[in-house]
Amino acid sequence: MTRTTKGACLVVGVGDGVGGAIARAFAAEGFTVCMTRRPRHLDQLEALAVALRDAGQDARAFGVDARQEAEMIALVDRIEAEVGPLEVVVFNIGANVRFGLIETTAQVFSKVWEMACFAGFLTAREAARVMVPRGRGTILFTGASASLRGKDGFSAFASAKAGLRAVAQSAARELGPLGIHVAHVVVDGAIDGVFIRSVRDNVDDLLAKDEILKPAEIAANYVWLHDQPRSAWTHEIDLRPYSESW
Amino acid sequence: MTRTTKGACLVVGVGDGVGGAIARAFAAEGFTVCMTRRPRHLDQLEALAVALRDAGQDARAFGVDARQEAEMIALVDRIEAEVGPLEVVVFNIGANVRFGLIETTAQVFSKVWEMACFAGFLTAREAARVMVPRGRGTILFTGASASLRGKDGFSAFASAKAGLRAVAQSAARELGPLGIHVAHVVVDGAIDGVFIRSVRDNVDDLLAKDEILKPAEIAANYVWLHDQPRSAWTHEIDLRPYSESW
Amino acid sequence: MTRTTKGACLVVGVGDGVGGAIARAFAAEGFTVCMTRRPRHLDQLEALAVALRDAGQDARAFGVDARQEAEMIALVDRIEAEVGPLEVVVFNIGANVRFGLIETTAQVFSKVWEMACFAGFLTAREAARVMVPRGRGTILFTGASASLRGKDGFSAFASAKAGLRAVAQSAARELGPLGIHVAHVVVDGAIDGVFIRSVRDNVDDLLAKDEILKPAEIAANYVWLHDQPRSAWTHEIDLRPYSESW
Amino acid sequence: MTRTTKGACLVVGVGDGVGGAIARAFAAEGFTVCMTRRPRHLDQLEALAVALRDAGQDARAFGVDARQEAEMIALVDRIEAEVGPLEVVVFNIGANVRFGLIETTAQVFSKVWEMACFAGFLTAREAARVMVPRGRGTILFTGASASLRGKDGFSAFASAKAGLRAVAQSAARELGPLGIHVAHVVVDGAIDGVFIRSVRDNVDDLLAKDEILKPAEIAANYVWLHDQPRSAWTHEIDLRPYSESW
Repeated sequence: MTRTTKGACLVVGVGDGVGGAIARAFAAEGFTVCMTRRPRHLDQLEALAVALRDAGQDARAFGVDARQEAEMIALVDRIEAEVGPLEVVVFNIGANVRFGLIETTAQVFSKVWEMACFAGFLTAREAARVMVPRGRGTILFTGASASLRGKDGFSAFASAKAGLRAVAQSAARELGPLGIHVAHVVVDGAIDGVFIRSVRDNVDDLLAKDEILKPAEIAANYVWLHDQPRSAWTHEIDLRPYSESW
Repeated sequence: MTRTTKGACLVVGVGDGVGGAIARAFAAEGFTVCMTRRPRHLDQLEALAVALRDAGQDARAFGVDARQEAEMIALVDRIEAEVGPLEVVVFNIGANVRFGLIETTAQVFSKVWEMACFAGFLTAREAARVMVPRGRGTILFTGASASLRGKDGFSAFASAKAGLRAVAQSAARELGPLGIHVAHVVVDGAIDGVFIRSVRDNVDDLLAKDEILKPAEIAANYVWLHDQPRSAWTHEIDLRPYSESW
Repeated sequence: MTRTTKGACLVVGVGDGVGGAIARAFAAEGFTVCMTRRPRHLDQLEALAVALRDAGQDARAFGVDARQEAEMIALVDRIEAEVGPLEVVVFNIGANVRFGLIETTAQVFSKVWEMACFAGFLTAREAARVMVPRGRGTILFTGASASLRGKDGFSAFASAKAGLRAVAQSAARELGPLGIHVAHVVVDGAIDGVFIRSVRDNVDDLLAKDEILKPAEIAANYVWLHDQPRSAWTHEIDLRPYSESW
Repeated sequence: MTRTTKGACLVVGVGDGVGGAIARAFAAEGFTVCMTRRPRHLDQLEALAVALRDAGQDARAFGVDARQEAEMIALVDRIEAEVGPLEVVVFNIGANVRFGLIETTAQVFSKVWEMACFAGFLTAREAARVMVPRGRGTILFTGASASLRGKDGFSAFASAKAGLRAVAQSAARELGPLGIHVAHVVVDGAIDGVFIRSVRDNVDDLLAKDEILKPAEIAANYVWLHDQPRSAWTHEIDLRPYSESW
């Protein structure tokens, strides 16, 4: 069993820049970071775990389909048994798609919900299962502007994100008095990373002008939320570049 | 093919007092009301259809599982072919359950979402499919106070209702400019009916003091929304008894 | 003392199309409509009162500065004494201005608040004073999209409208259980009238396409809200043309 | 002219625990803290300034009526001239009163607005005036749960706080793209201090259980907001004890 100072931090959905940055940030704080990604991309996640360990931090990679109840139960049990108590759990799976309502297939609508909402529910429930008996822990959700309202072309995505936000609110009201901090981060704006660089060619320009969110700067807020004393907890925080219209 | 003055009104989820009242209200306005309920309860729905027809109105009952994409596509096609153009579509399926987060099974969470959110998406999409080419039509959703925020014990229900509201908002913003009126009715408070009478024994007292919502009075607002001219459309309206705390 | 079937309806702020339309709508319903406008414009208001009386309805014009507490107290007392019980009170004074924050003078900020918020508080309070002992009555506020959120250039207007909305919410929660219906109408979009015709030259085109709100259609919703039975009251309703982006 | 490393931080409304804690927090960060309070309480504020200076920090006390436009203009001009560039401006004046609607006098309603909303507008405007030419600066507002919705007994307070929040939103949308960070902190729950200790006798018990907000912990979030890089700014954050019902 690995010994760490601060216990385990699980980040579900380390497939893009933000998940990785969150994992790095909590690793730097002394947590043993347990990162998940779908099994077929596990190689890339292993590389990140190795890099963190090479830097003297503690990290593990897990190939998990977060939509599978049994897999999530087993993951949490395994971390608790092999790593240590889960102090922080972050749900960070997105599924941003854009389709007109008539063009949205039942399959797309369901899959977006499974990834962005149902998996978040499973994550929160399994986190609560081990945290409630200890009376402490932090559960963080990554939201988006679509979490707050639906828009043309976002029936599937906004529905899943609004559903996830309702899980976060319900969990916060239920678990807060039990000592579990539940918070929802509304990330509003383009984020530097592989995806945005594949669709825009001016990302370096945006970066130079601070007009794009940087994963490490987003992640710092997750650590801040975890560090808040329980007498002054935040449930929801928004993040956007100064230049963003909203 | 049945000929009616005003066309067809589809009410998905005529299993409780509100759905039935909405159907009655639109039948009284001259629509051919097409009502759905799950197949195993079709007998009761047939009885309502017969009662409406005996009263000189036009009504049809359909046994449909609204979570099945193929069934919803077929239903809308059949109404358009056999009854007439769908002018009003109402999604009224609820699934109010209360469980603590840890006690919420994956099956419960999924089923509540399928009934209260996914089926609403299918209903809206199929309505849009036939309404958009005509540039007119009304799509109405029944919401609840849980649509607006999550609460202790309502992870599943609030998540599904918030997801449905996001579908309604997305559809309104997309379909409004195309001439389709999409509105969401937030029903906040106990409603007179079989369910509430099974769990409370003071319903007649509440009724006498107007402290409980009456299905017919709820339904009148659905007709009002449909009758609004397109230069002054409402997207969201709340309804509660004067005595309700909120 | 004038005798009417339905009692008195006070409309505060009949200076534009919407206030006049609301007055006409309640007059047509059989109320004695008491309309206010600032004293210097009383002539125009008298003309409307005469027109309504010529049409067989009952209407009175009052020159009142709704920001003056003593004037509002005296107005309500006079209506109760001379006309009959106030059944409906509508606050309809707007003050839409647009200035950058730095360009907003203290005088502008204060005056917009006095007109759009403080006068609304006085109106609601005086209405409550006479309605509460009777356990019935309706108080309606005209809101705007700025009531819901602040925007660039709208520090003064959005602040006053948000403040008015908070008065409406507080009053609804306090007075609802006492039998008083308090509702807030969010009017979102351009409205046909003298003002819009002075700044746009395509109003007839917008009207022909239903892309602009018509005062009479707005007003119909105020009557609808008043007519709701107390077992199913709406607190907030939005109104916008189908073509409006929001 | 005083030279500081980080420039000036103005805290308007250092009359209770939170304002003082915010001043202490920014002083500890190296700012020259300029604190205001109404002139008649200036003695107490001077004592705090002396204490901070004795601790090696830089602080000044100003007796100012923040509702007076001329005083606020002069204050900002004087700080810019004598202390240095205003980098952070915090508006922290509250005015929590509770009266039923009918019992709310025009004087109470106006005074609460002047203190909690109008003074906040003046503060933001004067901050913007000197910050916009430099393209940087932070403006922070203290909100409350009443900022988000009206409640029974809070017509005056909720109206003023909702109006202040609309100023914050308008300022954020206008000034953000100009490099000024505007944020609104929703403080929800009882706060340890003189006031709460005068009305409750269990404050030490609440403190021991972390069931009450501590000024220093609130203040830490203001520093956090100021420190956010402009590529990831928060506009609104809520703070409440874990045990708070909401």
